[in-house]
Amino acid sequence: MIITGSSADVSPLDLHDGKTVFHVKKRVLIGPAHGAPHYVMRLFTLGTGGATPYHSHPWEHETFIVRGKCTIRSEDREFALAAGDFAYVPAGDPHQFINAGDDNLEFICVVPTEGEPTR
Amino acid sequence: MIITGSSADVSPLDLHDGKTVFHVKKRVLIGPAHGAPHYVMRLFTLGTGGATPYHSHPWEHETFIVRGKCTIRSEDREFALAAGDFAYVPAGDPHQFINAGDDNLEFICVVPTEGEPTR
Repeated sequence: MIITGSSADVSPLDLHDGKTVFHVKKRVLIGPAHGAPHYVMRLFTLGTGGATPYHSHPWEHETFIVRGKCTIRSEDREFALAAGDFAYVPAGDPHQFINAGDDNLEFICVVPTEGEPTR
Repeated sequence: MIITGSSADVSPLDLHDGKTVFHVKKRVLIGPAHGAPHYVMRLFTLGTGGATPYHSHPWEHETFIVRGKCTIRSEDREFALAAGDFAYVPAGDPHQFINAGDDNLEFICVVPTEGEPTR
């Protein structure tokens, strides 16, 4: 059965490690809870000054910038992205998503099911 | 290695069956050509009056509406979506994406690798 929804109605999860304020909200739009077997679609919203941790993990990201300006930091360079741009982050590559604008940054980020702990 | 790009720089593929004009353009943003092993991120643009065929296939869609208004037709009902909305179409479910607005409709649609013939 087809399932639809509005991202505005999905409760945001605050990214945190207990001490750092990341200004990052994650909404799990489609995943195992909807019956999706293979990969999970998430919507990230980074407030002004927001950034994800610089980190790596054994799964890939497929990312599409919906709104705002984004800098992706990698091991050896930075990438500047804006709405309509996309980024592929291979498994194992260190990366950080940074809000590089004065307004919210929104991007879609798809990971394999193993990469999304929320059920 | 992280790969980035702009959807505007990706050559669009016209959806056609040799006779029907669908007014549907598909851009394969991230997939096997970038080294992505599991699933493929595509951006669809439907012009005014555009619609995909009503069809089904043995893989799922994870879809996010970027811009415009969309009607998804299923076997027994229609869903009205707008920017910020999402839809999960399970494998095997008949469906049709219809541009329900007066401007372009853009949506992200992620399929397993087997669901995207473009290499």
